[in-house]
Amino acid sequence: MRQLKLTIAYDGTRFVGWQRQAEGESIQGLLEQVLARFEGAPVTVHGAGRTDAGVHALGQVASVSVAFDHDVRTLARALNAQLPEDVRVLDVSEAPPGFHARFSATAKTYRYQIRAGVVAPPFDRAFVWQLPEALDVGAMDRAARVLLGTHDFSAFQSAGSDTRDAVRTLTRSEVAPGDGGLVRYEVSGNGFLRHMVRAIVGTLVEVGRGRWSAADVAGILAGADRGVAGATAPAHGLVLVRVDYDQLLAD
Amino acid sequence: MRQLKLTIAYDGTRFVGWQRQAEGESIQGLLEQVLARFEGAPVTVHGAGRTDAGVHALGQVASVSVAFDHDVRTLARALNAQLPEDVRVLDVSEAPPGFHARFSATAKTYRYQIRAGVVAPPFDRAFVWQLPEALDVGAMDRAARVLLGTHDFSAFQSAGSDTRDAVRTLTRSEVAPGDGGLVRYEVSGNGFLRHMVRAIVGTLVEVGRGRWSAADVAGILAGADRGVAGATAPAHGLVLVRVDYDQLLAD
Repeated sequence: MRQLKLTIAYDGTRFVGWQRQAEGESIQGLLEQVLARFEGAPVTVHGAGRTDAGVHALGQVASVSVAFDHDVRTLARALNAQLPEDVRVLDVSEAPPGFHARFSATAKTYRYQIRAGVVAPPFDRAFVWQLPEALDVGAMDRAARVLLGTHDFSAFQSAGSDTRDAVRTLTRSEVAPGDGGLVRYEVSGNGFLRHMVRAIVGTLVEVGRGRWSAADVAGILAGADRGVAGATAPAHGLVLVRVDYDQLLAD
Repeated sequence: MRQLKLTIAYDGTRFVGWQRQAEGESIQGLLEQVLARFEGAPVTVHGAGRTDAGVHALGQVASVSVAFDHDVRTLARALNAQLPEDVRVLDVSEAPPGFHARFSATAKTYRYQIRAGVVAPPFDRAFVWQLPEALDVGAMDRAARVLLGTHDFSAFQSAGSDTRDAVRTLTRSEVAPGDGGLVRYEVSGNGFLRHMVRAIVGTLVEVGRGRWSAADVAGILAGADRGVAGATAPAHGLVLVRVDYDQLLAD
């Protein structure tokens, strides 16, 4: 069997999420369906990040074991010909035996987009959380940087989540202004708990509104109580930007 | 009666175009419907640019005569509350008597987006014409500048169009690379013939492919024969960016 590494972009708007579900269309399910045609047998695709319903990807990575011998140089085009326009395979490469998109990943980067303004411009409304009030972007950035490093992120874990070890390391956590009133949160880390980025964004928005300070966020983090942090920000502002692997494994 | 000036953005994807039609939903029709509720009587909205089906706007301008006395400072929000998400009123202001969005306009700016690449990223697919081959952006820019100034643009007029005077003045006509493989054509002028921008883009793409040179485009322009220029580029790459007015009229 060959091990393939797929890099995928998708507009998550109409999907139930990355992961196959009993009902509705998933990106994993779609890819498995199309790859099974090449394989002539069912295949299982593993994704690096199990993005929720409505979350997008610019650089999701998936791994799959296959027996077919289609050349990787033309496989992306062949797969895209059979996929809907909102899911695109950007790249296919051979991966070493044992490569697993999720377990081999060393880091992931997510971006969350907010726009502060009364009117939501129609062009990117599927990718931006629109908030009517002005936000203090500098204060949000200071608070975001409090989360850098290794911490127990239980305070930003989805309620009812069963992850026992909530310790994660963030190597990047910053808020910056973008064009046309956009506010962007970028975060990289070795792993993320369920709804963690969206819970962080919900908390940073409270900082932007002046309700909390960076010190309050440090206290929320230390308290490790999900009931205290801000609400979970909506899914559609979130995008999985990239997934990193050790050089030896990925290339 | 008061004369109002509305600045409007829309995602043109699902519309039959700016202009009211016998069948299908138009942006003009939608605005007239919503404004009629405030007026308690039918109203007629005039747009600066009659964008085609699938063409978008970041800064379309419309004028309307009304008798209702709703404050312009809150009218945009009130209108947006009743409009679908893909049409947004960005601004409403009082205009002098006699202001007409189309006849008072002194200049319009359009942008056309192309991406050269085999894979169309899913995020902006509704706003970009995707072409699989590489394009020579420098050659396209040189050819675009040939069109600057005052010319008879019959060569770039839609076939069967009945405009008698095809002389227009372009004050900007340039092609530049954007992020992620984007190629942008920006054009400003005192007026545009039907399908003119899209016919220019179809021609510039042939230059980008190496089929024609800037000198060939000069010849096509001078020949004034629509059968010679490139094909009309698809509508969805085009956006009406802004409309300009004399200071006295607009403010």
